Amino acid sequence: MTTPTGQVVLLGRLREIAGPAHVLTEQACAPYLTDWRKLVTGRALAVVRPATTEQVRDVVRACLEHGAPVVPQGGNTGQVAGATPDDTGRAVVVQMGRMKRIRSIDIENDTLVVEAGCVLQEVQEAAGAAGRLFPLSLGAEGSCLIGGNLATNAGGTQVLRYGNARELTLGLEVVTADGEIWNGLRALRKDNTGYDLRDLYIGSEGTLGIITAATLKLFPLPVAQRTALAAMGGVEQAVALLTRARSVLGADLTGFELMSSVATDLVLRHYPDQRVPLRAGAPWFVLLESSDSESAERAASRFEALLAAAFEAGEIQDAAIAESVAQSRAMWHLRESITLALAAEGKCAKHDISIATSRIPGFVTSTDALLQQRFAGVRSATFGHLGDGNLHYNILQPSGTPATTFVEVQNELSRLVHNAVRDHAGSISAEQGIGGLRTADLQRYEDPVKLDLLRRIKRALDPAGLMNPGKVLP
Amino acid sequence: MTTPTGQVVLLGRLREIAGPAHVLTEQACAPYLTDWRKLVTGRALAVVRPATTEQVRDVVRACLEHGAPVVPQGGNTGQVAGATPDDTGRAVVVQMGRMKRIRSIDIENDTLVVEAGCVLQEVQEAAGAAGRLFPLSLGAEGSCLIGGNLATNAGGTQVLRYGNARELTLGLEVVTADGEIWNGLRALRKDNTGYDLRDLYIGSEGTLGIITAATLKLFPLPVAQRTALAAMGGVEQAVALLTRARSVLGADLTGFELMSSVATDLVLRHYPDQRVPLRAGAPWFVLLESSDSESAERAASRFEALLAAAFEAGEIQDAAIAESVAQSRAMWHLRESITLALAAEGKCAKHDISIATSRIPGFVTSTDALLQQRFAGVRSATFGHLGDGNLHYNILQPSGTPATTFVEVQNELSRLVHNAVRDHAGSISAEQGIGGLRTADLQRYEDPVKLDLLRRIKRALDPAGLMNPGKVLP
Repeated sequence: MTTPTGQVVLLGRLREIAGPAHVLTEQACAPYLTDWRKLVTGRALAVVRPATTEQVRDVVRACLEHGAPVVPQGGNTGQVAGATPDDTGRAVVVQMGRMKRIRSIDIENDTLVVEAGCVLQEVQEAAGAAGRLFPLSLGAEGSCLIGGNLATNAGGTQVLRYGNARELTLGLEVVTADGEIWNGLRALRKDNTGYDLRDLYIGSEGTLGIITAATLKLFPLPVAQRTALAAMGGVEQAVALLTRARSVLGADLTGFELMSSVATDLVLRHYPDQRVPLRAGAPWFVLLESSDSESAERAASRFEALLAAAFEAGEIQDAAIAESVAQSRAMWHLRESITLALAAEGKCAKHDISIATSRIPGFVTSTDALLQQRFAGVRSATFGHLGDGNLHYNILQPSGTPATTFVEVQNELSRLVHNAVRDHAGSISAEQGIGGLRTADLQRYEDPVKLDLLRRIKRALDPAGLMNPGKVLP
Repeated sequence: MTTPTGQVVLLGRLREIAGPAHVLTEQACAPYLTDWRKLVTGRALAVVRPATTEQVRDVVRACLEHGAPVVPQGGNTGQVAGATPDDTGRAVVVQMGRMKRIRSIDIENDTLVVEAGCVLQEVQEAAGAAGRLFPLSLGAEGSCLIGGNLATNAGGTQVLRYGNARELTLGLEVVTADGEIWNGLRALRKDNTGYDLRDLYIGSEGTLGIITAATLKLFPLPVAQRTALAAMGGVEQAVALLTRARSVLGADLTGFELMSSVATDLVLRHYPDQRVPLRAGAPWFVLLESSDSESAERAASRFEALLAAAFEAGEIQDAAIAESVAQSRAMWHLRESITLALAAEGKCAKHDISIATSRIPGFVTSTDALLQQRFAGVRSATFGHLGDGNLHYNILQPSGTPATTFVEVQNELSRLVHNAVRDHAGSISAEQGIGGLRTADLQRYEDPVKLDLLRRIKRALDPAGLMNPGKVLP
């Protein structure tokens, strides 16, 4: 535990390490102390912004010496308050935004070495400038940092083709919880030299160390893409379309997003300039995207054949294929506006769940029914990455009722949803992680054997318990 | 440490658990006590062959109680003696071959749940019977067990398209070193609920627990495949062809194997019925394969266009496209015969290395030259999975010299090769693991920070130190 004198000494040391301009205290810390969803506000001794791996190491060592908790932070765009310090004011937030070099790019090896503070979009652009694709893509890509994407094993919209952040990473550089630098930046596709440290740090949400750089995989840029919006009668039909699209398009299927009409109707209500380019009445929509390595003609003909066959088989009621980049963007914009439309509409209980796709129709039907029995009038604004089995199963307060009434039952409602997820062998955190918000859920829903293993790993790699304490494991 | 009385009690307990017929002792153990390469022979108290996860758990608990080391074993086809007990005779070998159920298959979710004792080929066949592909493929597939493939994170010939065993696995069931069952058989493509235990057990070579079952990913069967053999003047041209093939074929490039003419000439000498269907004289060959999701016509025209462009660009001197399944098999047979031809030819120092593909030409040229300077006359019979940067950089004794002379310098020669690998930021064990044979190399070539982290993980998850002791970490 840091003493008041110790805190002064520590602040002085942090200023020596990073330079006085990069150690923020008091009011200057404020932008870094509230999570993106504005659910949690903490306090900190300081926010330090190191510029090099060695500075990160020295900051961690200084904090260890003074017993100060270390809270790593990227773009602060997480959904589960994983980068927000507690309210004791003892923590040092290590904000990674100054480590923003693209260190190298190797076209023949299809790899890129980036520092943790690069904005995801900058990484995408560096790949694009070299004629390559870095496929990780998500709503916050203009402000999230790649280090945070890796620390949380980010997902997004291209997972069904390219995998999560984990699958896109070959190597890491990490400052360990002991203040050592592990240089694991190998650009290798095969490396069986001991336990898989890389994947242990990826997704550990800053509780085992700080990722300072990474070697990422690059892919060929697609030659052509096609986007369509399809309407259907139920989730079962959407899953049938997914199976068909996988079989017809194989690795060229790069997007498959489900949207309930509850969700799209809310977008239309709150953003009247948007539209659904299909005749009204269908309860469910799928946004699908293909990427072709060959030609626009091939992309178009395969996509049209797929949709025609799905129509023939009764899987879809109607479909619109984007005829221009603008139309494709409008379709994606509809999908990406759902979160904001939900926020504009009222209180919402959010669930980031995944279930085997074959079990999703049953889950949605039975859970929607249970919710109506118990919480009559709530609205299931379900949407998400059906191609990965990942639903944002978000439940809105009933229309015309006070928000406070809903807030009172929100925990009970989420319990009902998560119990149903457990009964369907699913995950209560598909892509957003545990952070500070879901630690109780993790304890409740995970196997005690697994929890015990997680705790042992935490103790083994962070014996002082100072790396992002209270996150993931309570 | 087990006492003699304790050993008798333990044997009795093992017979209760697995049935007397499935606890082998004395001479009956012999087939399980020598590694595949016949480099190491150990001893064991017993070889037990459990039939269920609960039996595996009970065996581990009994061994823990009596302080007996546990050595998990699959098909005993590993290259690094990772499943062979030491010579104290105290260990219990847990042979997984009786746990061979395909537990379930889910076509809509594209997943398969198998027990650890399924032969890899049986897993491939179960997938095929359901109209799906399980792409893990390697020389030993007719006898290796999927549990061993996962414990060693097996690679093989399809990695450049589908990844290693790690990337093909969604969930695991594991008996931990404490004798608990962790049921992590989720069939989910996104699951961020705590640290990545799955990938920690995958590749841990039985030193942290015993994998008893797994949920594996399935893929669409390709509609058509094309195979070709191309001849070229150097490794640089082979890398250029790889870059071109990746860019033209994208995800349809499913095989890219490099072979030196030293290696192919040995096959022709020892297996005179085989042939290289190209005009003689080229020092290097590439075997390449594409898999098309659409049609045989498309597969053929793209493949021909690729090879024509490579010829035009001077990357290849000659090429033969297989015109039948038989011709394609003959090309693969040539590649797969190299290991046996090397064994027939004489003593060989084997190195299973990986290096960023862009650096491989420089590595091969400079290391070949260093070897000739220091060990005049040795023959570099280099071949391997160039598409993954993985070379079997195998060095044969000079022609006409006694094997004993070569054996004397073999360690020094391997040191030279591995030093060169380190200087090229590569790995000294790309796909075969560390096992019992490469523990000293791991200590020599890996970062002390990494080694310290590995040891901590071992202590945390196997506090008694009884799981496959002496493997991976000494």
